[in-house]
Formats: sequence, C-alpha cells, structure tokens
Amino acid sequence: MSRSKPLHRVVILGGGFGGLYAAKQLGGRPGIDVTVVDRRNFHLFQPLLYQVATGGLSPGDIASPIRAVLSRFANVRVLTGEASGLDVSNKRLVLKDGEVAYDTLVVAAGARFHYFGNEAWATHAPGLKTIEDALEIRRRVFTAFETAEREPDNDRRAAWMRFVIVGGGPTGVELAGAVAELCHGTLKADFRAIDTRQAEVVLLEGTDRILPPYPERLSRKAKGALERLGVSVLTNSLVTAIDQQGVSYRTGEEEVHLPARTKLWAVGVSASEFAQAVAAGTGASVDRGGRIVVGEDLTVPGHPEIFAIGDLASCAGASGEPLPGVAPVAMQQGRFVAKAIRARLAGRGVASFRYADKGSLAVIGRNAAVAYLGRFGISGFPAWLTWVFIHIAYLIEFDSKVLVIFQWGWNYLTRKRGARLITGTETLRDVGVGEGTTKT
Amino acid sequence: MSRSKPLHRVVILGGGFGGLYAAKQLGGRPGIDVTVVDRRNFHLFQPLLYQVATGGLSPGDIASPIRAVLSRFANVRVLTGEASGLDVSNKRLVLKDGEVAYDTLVVAAGARFHYFGNEAWATHAPGLKTIEDALEIRRRVFTAFETAEREPDNDRRAAWMRFVIVGGGPTGVELAGAVAELCHGTLKADFRAIDTRQAEVVLLEGTDRILPPYPERLSRKAKGALERLGVSVLTNSLVTAIDQQGVSYRTGEEEVHLPARTKLWAVGVSASEFAQAVAAGTGASVDRGGRIVVGEDLTVPGHPEIFAIGDLASCAGASGEPLPGVAPVAMQQGRFVAKAIRARLAGRGVASFRYADKGSLAVIGRNAAVAYLGRFGISGFPAWLTWVFIHIAYLIEFDSKVLVIFQWGWNYLTRKRGARLITGTETLRDVGVGEGTTKT
Repeated sequence: MSRSKPLHRVVILGGGFGGLYAAKQLGGRPGIDVTVVDRRNFHLFQPLLYQVATGGLSPGDIASPIRAVLSRFANVRVLTGEASGLDVSNKRLVLKDGEVAYDTLVVAAGARFHYFGNEAWATHAPGLKTIEDALEIRRRVFTAFETAEREPDNDRRAAWMRFVIVGGGPTGVELAGAVAELCHGTLKADFRAIDTRQAEVVLLEGTDRILPPYPERLSRKAKGALERLGVSVLTNSLVTAIDQQGVSYRTGEEEVHLPARTKLWAVGVSASEFAQAVAAGTGASVDRGGRIVVGEDLTVPGHPEIFAIGDLASCAGASGEPLPGVAPVAMQQGRFVAKAIRARLAGRGVASFRYADKGSLAVIGRNAAVAYLGRFGISGFPAWLTWVFIHIAYLIEFDSKVLVIFQWGWNYLTRKRGARLITGTETLRDVGVGEGTTKT
Repeated sequence: MSRSKPLHRVVILGGGFGGLYAAKQLGGRPGIDVTVVDRRNFHLFQPLLYQVATGGLSPGDIASPIRAVLSRFANVRVLTGEASGLDVSNKRLVLKDGEVAYDTLVVAAGARFHYFGNEAWATHAPGLKTIEDALEIRRRVFTAFETAEREPDNDRRAAWMRFVIVGGGPTGVELAGAVAELCHGTLKADFRAIDTRQAEVVLLEGTDRILPPYPERLSRKAKGALERLGVSVLTNSLVTAIDQQGVSYRTGEEEVHLPARTKLWAVGVSASEFAQAVAAGTGASVDRGGRIVVGEDLTVPGHPEIFAIGDLASCAGASGEPLPGVAPVAMQQGRFVAKAIRARLAGRGVASFRYADKGSLAVIGRNAAVAYLGRFGISGFPAWLTWVFIHIAYLIEFDSKVLVIFQWGWNYLTRKRGARLITGTETLRDVGVGEGTTKT
C-alpha cells in the first residue's frame, strides 16, 4: 500500500472524559492513526461513582468498555496497559511491558486523592476515585450496619453508627446525602436491634462553607438541604488525625475527637503520578496539586507535540484562576485537542482553548440538588431534575445506557437500593467485627 | 408482656433458595421467632451467575439483600455471621463471634466446588459459586483477550485465545455457550490485532455425553447447538492435569495436552463444610458428595429438631436416587420445612417430602436452550423463551428485579454485554501479561 504521507500517530493516555472525547473526534479522520492506552478496560462515569458506593447503582451501570465505545472507528485501537515513563526525545510512551511511538501525545491520565502527607489515613478513610474504591466504601458502609446490629455495647455501637465524610466539595456533599438517605429511608425497616434513623452522618469541611466554588447562597441552600436529611454539617473544622476508632478535628481553639468506625475521604485531589514523568521529560512546571501547567493551546511549553488535558492539567480560565477538575472541562479540552491536531495537519493555525462554563451541579438527595447555571442559581427539585437529565444524557452518549434511567426511576419510586452487596475478600472480622459477642 | 407459650425459635442457616423460602413461609406466623444466619448480606440468584462471569449482567442484578427480602416480617431477623460449629445438646448454633439458641434448626448452607483431591487446580481453573468467583472469571476471560491483542508470538497468543471449560453439566454448558457468543458476537469488532472469532472454546466432559441427567435426545440437541456456536464439545475426556499453561486430559488410551491460559471449572459439587459439623454432632451419615443423608421428613435421623435441605442434604427422590442439587428442590424443601414446623407446633403430624419435578432447563445461548418439562423435551427458541420467563419470574418474586428484563431485552437486541469490566486488585502482570512485549 503506498501513501503520499505516512499516517500521523496520535497516542492518547487515559480513557476518561478528556481522552475519550479526543479519540471520538479523531475517529474516522483520514491520515490519522489513534492509539488509546489505559490501565483499565473501561471508561468510568465518575460523577455517579458515589451511587455505587452507596448501593444505588452497580459498577456495570456507570462503566463502558473503552473498546465498545470506540469499536466503530477502524483507525482507533485500544491498548490495555500501564504507562511507566516518557521518552520525549524519541517520542515514545513507555509502558510497563512495551512502548508505543507517537507523533502527537495527549496526556489525559486524570487525578487521584492525596492526604496532604498523611498517607496512613488512606487505610482508615478511603477516597472515591475507582470502582474498587466505591466497592470498598460500599463494603464498609453496609458492614457497619451489620456490625452495629450485633454489637451489645452502647458506645461501640454508636461508633459503628456514625459516618464521617471529610470534605465539603461536591463529592463529599453527594456522599453525605446518599448515606443519610440510606439511614433514614432505605434501611429503616431492615434491622431489629438498631434503628438506622439514629445513625449520625457528619460532614467535616475545613473552610467556612460547603461547596466553596459555588455562590454563597447555594452553599447555604445545600447546607439546609443536608441538615433536613439529617446530616450534621460542621464547617471551619480541620481534620488533625484519623485512625481505626475515629477522627479528630480542630474547630477554632478546640480539638474534638469523634468516635466513628466509618470515615470517607472527599478532599485533596492531585494529578496522577504520570504528570511527574511528563514534567521530568519536558521541564514543564507543576502546580501545588501536581498538575502540569499548560499553555493556551493546552500543549506543554516547548513541546507542541504533547498535550495535557483534564484533571492532570492546570489551565488558566477566563478569570485567571485554574479551571476546576470537572468532567465538562475535560470533555471540552478533549474536543479542542482533536480539532487542534487536525488544524495543524491541514497547515492551519491553532486557536486558544476557551472554556464555556455551562454551570455546576451537586446533588444532595432525592429531590434535592443545587445548581449554578450561568447567572442563575437553582436548587431543590428543579435542580435535581436538571442534574438527572444532564447525567443521563452523558451516559447515553457514551454507551446507550438507557437502563440506568429505569434503575433511577425505580430507585426513586421505591426508595430502594438493590445493589448493596458486601463483597470482597476481607471478612467481617478484619474490619473489627467480633470485638463484642452476641448471645441470644 | 406475658404469653401463655414462649416463642418457638427457628434458626435458619443459609439465605439461599432453601433458607429464604423457609423464612418467608414462617414470616408473620404467630408463636414463631425466626433468625436467618448467613455469611453474606445478600441472596444470590445462582442460576444466572454465569451471566455475571461473562459480562452480561452486574452482580447487583442477580443479588438481593436478605434483609430487604425479609424486612416486612417483624418476627424474622437477619444476622450476618459465619457458623463455626453446632452444640447439639444445648441446641445452639455456634458462630465465629457468638452463638444463637434454637428450638428448631434448619441447615441450608449450600454447596461448593471440589476438585477431587486436586485442590491445586482451583488456582488455575476457578469454579463458579460466589459473586467473587464470577468477577474473577470475568476478569480472566476479558484479560485473556486484552493480552492476546498485545502478544506477538503465535503460540502464546493461541493459548490466550483458547478457553477450556471442564464439565458438561448445566453450568459448563451455559458458560461455554456464553463465552462462545462473546468471541463470535459481542467482541468481534473490538480488537485490531486479533480476530476474536478465531478463539477456541473447548468443553471437556468425562462421560459419553453432556448434560448427563437429561434424556439422550436433548444431550444431542445441546451438543449440536453448542457446535453451531463454535464450541468444541469433547466427551469421554477426563482431565488429568491443570496448570497455568494449559490442561491435560485422557480420551481412550490417548493423553492430550491443550495449551490454554483460561480454564473454568464446572464439575464436582460437594456440600459446604458445615455438613461435617452437623454429622459430627448428630452422628448422621454423609454421602460421597459430603451431603447429609436426611429422612423422608428432611430431618437428621434421631434429631427431629434439625432439618437439612437444599444442596447440602441428600434426600431420596421417587426413583430412589438422591435428588439433584438444583434451585427447585431447595425451594420446595424450604416450603415443606416451614409447613412441617407449623404442623408440629399445632400438634399435627408431619408428612413425607415429595419433590414435584417440573422439569429441567439449560440455556446454551441467544435463542438456544434445551428443556425437559415432564414428559416433553423441547429445544431451540421455545426452550430459550421458557427459560427466560421462568428465571425472570423467580427474580421478580424475590426482589421485583424488573430491570433485569430490560437488561436482557437490551442485550438480546444489541448483542451487547456492557458489564465486561476487568476489576480487582490483581494486575495484568500477575496473570502472565508481559511475557512478550509490544513495540509499535
């Protein structure tokens, strides 16, 4: 086969929102050969991960096989593999077991939680980034109720019935709302020795209000909605220690210890490790969160062949502040990068990336959400409906997951959460069951 | 509160079909207090477990929280705990972390796979009994394709593209059919370096035909249907060795070695370990499969207060042969036991258990199944439809899982399998990826 020009090889690292949008836009384009590399074989719809963690949806409901999403594009191939380094001078992405040559590299490897130097906290307060995280949180939450049901000692039972969520951002707010709904709705008839409605859900936030990036009025609304669900919202409360038995925090001059067996971590996102490999290879600078600082065209300074997008990139928005690590930013950047690559190949110039902010949404529970759409702040049921429709639209775009609509409608009508399985290899004993004994 | 009679305490060990049917029949009955003990917090619809193993359904689709199934009965409580022994003289079920007193004990702890003394095979050829088994099989099957896609060596690639299922009973037949459909349908457009239609699916059966308990005509039909799906059905083929690289079997005088990285085990069910505790405590005898031999009223001889039902019990059917370990037997036994307990409390006599055999069904793939309903053997699409309706009826009975119908309809129309996630802690390297390297 003879060609006037060799194919331009685009390698995309990461099958999240940024990587997939770029791959879809480059799919079927003549002259371009695309390879998507990801450690996992599926794209994860992270905004709904908290639903898996609380038994409302199954992992399969919010994950789509990357191959299936891209299979219709003959010029796109998918490699399941882990990137371990970057050979900038030879233009090769180094994998743990091989390497892939590129002409253009799109780094979209995402973010992970970090614990501000207290990595030991991770064992006691897992974050929520992967399917495994969600299943581990689900296991802990439902095991806590099972253990409380069998615990004869009042104080120990109370510690099993107290759930502390660290971080008042969207993930923390969504988790707190969902756990509170479990206690006060879904589970209330299921136990005999405990009353799940007496469980305590505590949301700890270090600053003076939850959802800090939102307007103050919406933060207040969200706090009210959480409190109506039975969540104790504690602002200006900075965590100082976490262990198996509980959590300590400082509020003003006071240091408070809260006995709680279940702690969830929803604060402190930083770029995935691969950002360091990129910085080391290109001399790019990284910000406090480990994110690569990119130029207006989303390339790494001095390396027009390397783009960095999504949660792993630090890109200034219209206000000069870096754009937040949310799905819409990654999607728009993925589309922009695909357009930029095609423009270059056609010999056209590349414009600057401009983020079109369509607003932000956080859901609090059944019927309750807060949204900030352009100049309008909405809350309550209208915000909840908006949230549901936007999320379903995205789910359908990727994988025609129409069933999730029915699952949601069903959960909404019945207040059921059918996916509350305790699975995994750890046994009940490993998480502290068996300290008390039951005799009947 | 004064009562003329103390409550009769029924303890049911196991939340499978037998245990749940007994508990539901005893729920709401005056004078009876029921405790259901299970290691897991969910009932598993085992007949559809192979669908989870092959990415068609999610764990949450075929599992129902035991508490949710029984929550409407105020006289039923559920304990999540593991039974470790039996104190027959004091009538106490001993748990790992406590004990529960009973007046009547119903042992319904189910079965597990055994490897005929070759327990080392379990690592290389996992069986399919639990959700974790299904997720492990799903991980292995989909990882095999991912690895084959990146394997440059022809022989090694062929070994990754060969799937051997050991055992031609219903589970083996269902697994073989589902894996073949994956290769020839679902995945065929998803890879670039391999053609999944060239994958080999081999079903090994030690006797002279698959589905031995069915009439011979249906065995023949099932073999034909599997072969049309591309499965190699090898009868009279007895496995002699299994290791990481492949499987050896004897057929006639010949010893054959088949290189295959993915082996699945679907033969050799034996009663769960707890049967031994019952035998030790009561002097009951166990059969070859470790099952407790029970009397006509399903009690352990000499112990009218202990019933054993389901896969863990050996109970003679009308023909004198022990009844098979299938869901309908367990369900009918669960109902019988509940009736027997109530009859006794009312001072009435207890009849003998009679199994009403409504037939057997095995599904082979899309549109294909074989069924043996009373005197009628049916196959093909009518059998498949029958199978779908019966299974959905049972799913709905337990947990109103209407969504599974839509999931199925969707999978059927689109030939998609959306739940094909590779999850778990083991990395690709642990299962042998990386022996070859890819350069592009």
